[in-house]
Amino acid sequence: MPRYKMTVEYDGIPYVGWQRQENGPSVQGAIEGAILSLTGETVSIRGAGRTDSGVHAMGQVMHADLSKEWKVYTLRNALNAHLRLAGNRIAILDIVEVDQSFDARFSAIRRHYLYRIIARRAPLALEAGRAWWVPKDMDHEVMHAAAQTLVGRHDFTTFRSAHCQANSPVRTLDRLDVTRSGELIEIRATAQSFLHNQIRSLAGTLKLAGEGKWTPDDVRAALEAKDRKACGPVAPPDGLYFMQVEYRDGAGSPGSEGKDIDDSDDLS
Amino acid sequence: MPRYKMTVEYDGIPYVGWQRQENGPSVQGAIEGAILSLTGETVSIRGAGRTDSGVHAMGQVMHADLSKEWKVYTLRNALNAHLRLAGNRIAILDIVEVDQSFDARFSAIRRHYLYRIIARRAPLALEAGRAWWVPKDMDHEVMHAAAQTLVGRHDFTTFRSAHCQANSPVRTLDRLDVTRSGELIEIRATAQSFLHNQIRSLAGTLKLAGEGKWTPDDVRAALEAKDRKACGPVAPPDGLYFMQVEYRDGAGSPGSEGKDIDDSDDLS
Repeated sequence: MPRYKMTVEYDGIPYVGWQRQENGPSVQGAIEGAILSLTGETVSIRGAGRTDSGVHAMGQVMHADLSKEWKVYTLRNALNAHLRLAGNRIAILDIVEVDQSFDARFSAIRRHYLYRIIARRAPLALEAGRAWWVPKDMDHEVMHAAAQTLVGRHDFTTFRSAHCQANSPVRTLDRLDVTRSGELIEIRATAQSFLHNQIRSLAGTLKLAGEGKWTPDDVRAALEAKDRKACGPVAPPDGLYFMQVEYRDGAGSPGSEGKDIDDSDDLS
Repeated sequence: MPRYKMTVEYDGIPYVGWQRQENGPSVQGAIEGAILSLTGETVSIRGAGRTDSGVHAMGQVMHADLSKEWKVYTLRNALNAHLRLAGNRIAILDIVEVDQSFDARFSAIRRHYLYRIIARRAPLALEAGRAWWVPKDMDHEVMHAAAQTLVGRHDFTTFRSAHCQANSPVRTLDRLDVTRSGELIEIRATAQSFLHNQIRSLAGTLKLAGEGKWTPDDVRAALEAKDRKACGPVAPPDGLYFMQVEYRDGAGSPGSEGKDIDDSDDLS
């Protein structure tokens, strides 16, 4: 039974999130629906990250097992046609056939997210729902300095949702960079996996530093408190984008090994 | 009676265009409605460019006369609040008080537009309605070379809508640059004023050059034909953004002279 690795872009606004749920349309449900329309098969797909409602993706990765062999570009074009017909804001960017050891979620070795803030007095028209509107100026250098106190292997209890299901609150944050271009402030986060709401919790806390309400030391102290109550307000989903997933050399290609030890409840 | 110059951003998707029309919501109508809600005054505003349905703006400029003096930031915040309450995707970015000689349309000396093309196989999810999807690779250097044959003062009959109301088809195109960043191709156009559908006609023709169907000489020949039938397919409104309007030194500030001789039917 061939397994296909697919890279997916979506606008998170119309969806309850990646994961299939009873209370509304999900990205997973829409893609499974497109597969059913195309092949007649009821499949269950798995994504590298279970993004929340309103969170976008430019490079979510998922895998699906189909009963027949497809030319990957035929499969991509056909699935995109079915997705569009059903009125979805989802596009399959790329498909490769992989072996059965590849798992989009458990084989991932690095996940990249972007969080976008637009700091200006006027509300957002073109970027409504696509960035966090902060109607005051922010010091992105202070945000970056504060972010550096969070990089590394830590207990991120402060920065995870009370509903987070991961076994351990310990994660290794490889990168948390804050850059600015005009009114746009971008936070780029990389780790093998993230806790539920971790990036939005980090972004909300870094905003306090950018406004001058918290120092970088205050941010570090919040981390060390290991207490959810020490977290700043959680940033809205609007600004969050799942950008890219990395797999070990060869994973995602035929014949590769794809087993991993991470518990990887990536629920950003 | 104080006159206010306002810089406006909008998402063109939900509107029939800038100009008030019977057949649906317009940007002009929404802003006039917000002014009415705030001040009780029925005003008629004028924009620097009458953008078509689906065309976006990051820097449209308009003016309005109000009966009382406002602090400009109070006026901006109040208008934005009324615009949002009514569910609009319009934001007033900036307001300055100007003298009565300033006219957003007739005082403009230079208008800047951007046309965005995304060239990739997969349809657009996040950028649907915000760029022209072209599902094949394009050579932006050929597009740029073709564009340079159009810069300067020409009879642009080939590149204007049959419905264009301008007295003359002659315009001076100051700049038509094509650049690329990954799958995104950007066309930047600058002129004192444009003809109806001129930029979308130029973009549709440059696409033919980018695909290798037309040479730069073919594009030049189309211009010289001075015949609407020589134009390539008109590009969709999705990719077009009204970016910025320039006024002569001091126009847009109190006490300036703001008279202009251009017929300026800017209907891009």
